[in-house]
Amino acid sequence: MNPTFVLSEAEQTSANNELFELLRIPSVSADPSHVGDMQRAAEYLQAKLATLGFTARVEATDGHPVVYAERLSDPGKPTVLIYGHYDVQPEAPIEEWLTPPFEPTVRNGRIYARGSTDDKGQAYAHIRGVELLLASGELPLNVKFLLEGEEEVGSKNLEPYLQQYAEQLKCDVIVISDGSRFAPDVPTVTYGLRGLSYVEVLVQGANRDLHSGSYGGVAPNPINALAEIISKLKDEQGRITIPGFYDGIDEITQEERDLWASLPHSDAEFAVSIDAAGLPGEAGYTTLERIWARPTLDVNGIWGGYQGEGSKTVIAAKAGAKISMRLVPGQDTENITKLIQDYVPKIAPAGVKVEVRALHGGQPVKIDLDNPYVRAAGKALQQVYGKAPAFTRGGGSIPIVAAFREILKAPVVLVDFGLNEDAPHSPNESFAVKDYHNGILTSAYLLQELAQVE
Amino acid sequence: MNPTFVLSEAEQTSANNELFELLRIPSVSADPSHVGDMQRAAEYLQAKLATLGFTARVEATDGHPVVYAERLSDPGKPTVLIYGHYDVQPEAPIEEWLTPPFEPTVRNGRIYARGSTDDKGQAYAHIRGVELLLASGELPLNVKFLLEGEEEVGSKNLEPYLQQYAEQLKCDVIVISDGSRFAPDVPTVTYGLRGLSYVEVLVQGANRDLHSGSYGGVAPNPINALAEIISKLKDEQGRITIPGFYDGIDEITQEERDLWASLPHSDAEFAVSIDAAGLPGEAGYTTLERIWARPTLDVNGIWGGYQGEGSKTVIAAKAGAKISMRLVPGQDTENITKLIQDYVPKIAPAGVKVEVRALHGGQPVKIDLDNPYVRAAGKALQQVYGKAPAFTRGGGSIPIVAAFREILKAPVVLVDFGLNEDAPHSPNESFAVKDYHNGILTSAYLLQELAQVE
Repeated sequence: MNPTFVLSEAEQTSANNELFELLRIPSVSADPSHVGDMQRAAEYLQAKLATLGFTARVEATDGHPVVYAERLSDPGKPTVLIYGHYDVQPEAPIEEWLTPPFEPTVRNGRIYARGSTDDKGQAYAHIRGVELLLASGELPLNVKFLLEGEEEVGSKNLEPYLQQYAEQLKCDVIVISDGSRFAPDVPTVTYGLRGLSYVEVLVQGANRDLHSGSYGGVAPNPINALAEIISKLKDEQGRITIPGFYDGIDEITQEERDLWASLPHSDAEFAVSIDAAGLPGEAGYTTLERIWARPTLDVNGIWGGYQGEGSKTVIAAKAGAKISMRLVPGQDTENITKLIQDYVPKIAPAGVKVEVRALHGGQPVKIDLDNPYVRAAGKALQQVYGKAPAFTRGGGSIPIVAAFREILKAPVVLVDFGLNEDAPHSPNESFAVKDYHNGILTSAYLLQELAQVE
Repeated sequence: MNPTFVLSEAEQTSANNELFELLRIPSVSADPSHVGDMQRAAEYLQAKLATLGFTARVEATDGHPVVYAERLSDPGKPTVLIYGHYDVQPEAPIEEWLTPPFEPTVRNGRIYARGSTDDKGQAYAHIRGVELLLASGELPLNVKFLLEGEEEVGSKNLEPYLQQYAEQLKCDVIVISDGSRFAPDVPTVTYGLRGLSYVEVLVQGANRDLHSGSYGGVAPNPINALAEIISKLKDEQGRITIPGFYDGIDEITQEERDLWASLPHSDAEFAVSIDAAGLPGEAGYTTLERIWARPTLDVNGIWGGYQGEGSKTVIAAKAGAKISMRLVPGQDTENITKLIQDYVPKIAPAGVKVEVRALHGGQPVKIDLDNPYVRAAGKALQQVYGKAPAFTRGGGSIPIVAAFREILKAPVVLVDFGLNEDAPHSPNESFAVKDYHNGILTSAYLLQELAQVE
């Protein structure tokens, strides 16, 4: 019989106070003047984990340090790696904060502070979850913590770190709590993320800007050409026309369709929430299916010619656009980038030269819905919330997840405690006290469930 | 028997010296610090015209003054109005001038100075042309000069002036020399100009920028939508698809086709001159026909989303484009603007809101090729150059020409003495001495020929 966890009032107060201490350290990774605070925050976490019996170290990188800690109870048991980050976004614009960003304040049941939800609060919930679990005896599995200090500035030193310490970081499953669950009353397990291929298309017409009176009707117009190229990248059904684009992609299963259809979602409310006149997209798929499990193509930026007030009768020499494609499992970012690089010159109209530059990419990831660790996360949430959780995928990409998959070769399970309304990255970021405490309970139950995976 | 005109060496020297005096006055209309120079330039012209027996006045406007002068020999004779402007473009970038912009310098047979070709040199050629004609007796027709000081800043006070003095300015034909002839060895009469309809298309998707991970596949993308709209404005043959766009336009006559086909022009050289990979455009028309006598649609500017370095995964809330259409006789600028305003919302994809704002317009103009004043101009050029001139149209718009047509209701004949290689508006603007002197001769012959029109 598994133990049942509760947080006593004393434990709640202690958990709050410890998190508040961490939140008071302005560990803004983007700001060089906070380099000392980065070190302080890392040491605070290292010290706490040491008190829990972890071998804990603050490890230097070429940027801000990584906190690594492990408590290995039994090599025969599963090993979980919990990832989080102790760095936070800059606080600007400071004048929009109702209370100081680095003085945590509780109002209406919410902790207001920079980093409260992203990610100090969610990461610390796991530390207190381990503490709660330890109160009933030795940990039933091997636990490793990896807490970085550069997530908000692109995690550029983490991949080398993973590569260097791959052996030490070896694990059966990776758990991350650094985002938002589906809805306030919907506990959520996220088991997949889309990937990305991001390119820049540059179109050149004449060698200089031309007068549209003297040359209009004859000179190639790179803006018109670019518009034509973009319009040819999708058909009338919203399907992407790049040959081979959909080859080999994982179709959405009936189980997924059913699960997602049962979630509380209204297209009308969704459209109202962004004040859009409609939700156009690929025919044959629901909104959630399109966001989580279908590839997309969006122009993210476009420029060319005269952008000022009034009119200028110019035919520009150049135009450009940033185009990104969200990818789904079965697609490969490098292959997709190559496909669009091959295709755009073929659909470019006569008279212009085009170039497609690869800018950025990321692999899509997905764990099987019936992966035992995914199921274990579901069981843990059921015990905390008394209801079945949602199993969702994410429409975005978390580059570090793909790195974990690639280097550590373990499944990544995302169990988010936050909500979009927490306003991460914005002024007055907050984290509900209840969500923090449920996060602690979830972590304890989750570790207990993961321990029982064969 | 008409007299034959020659410029003696003394006359050449005197004509040069007088023009140089005018070029030394830095009458930059855009720069308020030159307001005194504007007055000086106007008074210089007024004084000269007075010595030629003209009733000449410097007339105040809400901007820079207008020089008006008339010498009315006989109410039974035709009346010509010669338009020109004494204001010049700013000299910047000053460091690129080989000799000072307001100290005319002759090198290799060219007068280098700001305003040398645009338009002091060409306008002064008419003044010296009148002087040459007067040397053989009373003028054979009534001559009026209208020399403005705001052409380079949009002529915004000229239309009210025309309206106020329409009766005084009454004439049978208007002559303008303020541009470039077809080619160095091709004397040119220009008898038509394209018009313009210039609009701004604004597309709105959601009410704010969205993350392409969380919303990609569902949120309306205004940039993609704008590209689709633009691509639908022309068909595969380069024809504009706006319903009614081509209704009622004057087709190019066989005479025009033949005349233009005989001009020295090479598509290959033209493409090389702008380093373009091709000269795309409406099927079924030659390059010159497309520039001079076919309507066009060009995007002059486009913007939306992220335009900086690297990648940003944003779905923009808004995008916009400036779109202009060059119009030909038979089209009406206001009607065409209305047609595109009606059409764009119909071709906009679902989920976005569009707005088409009218920015600017101008009517196309054309005089019949067999108009006697056009023929008279041709005869004058034949006498100066010993060869038949080209009869061309212009691809651009000269707003003041449409205003002349509308208010004074007289045909406008463009007899340009300059060349593109004179580099008007650029550093080291120049005017060939030979072209200046031929301009003087042309003016004398032209007035003589115009006088004989019944």
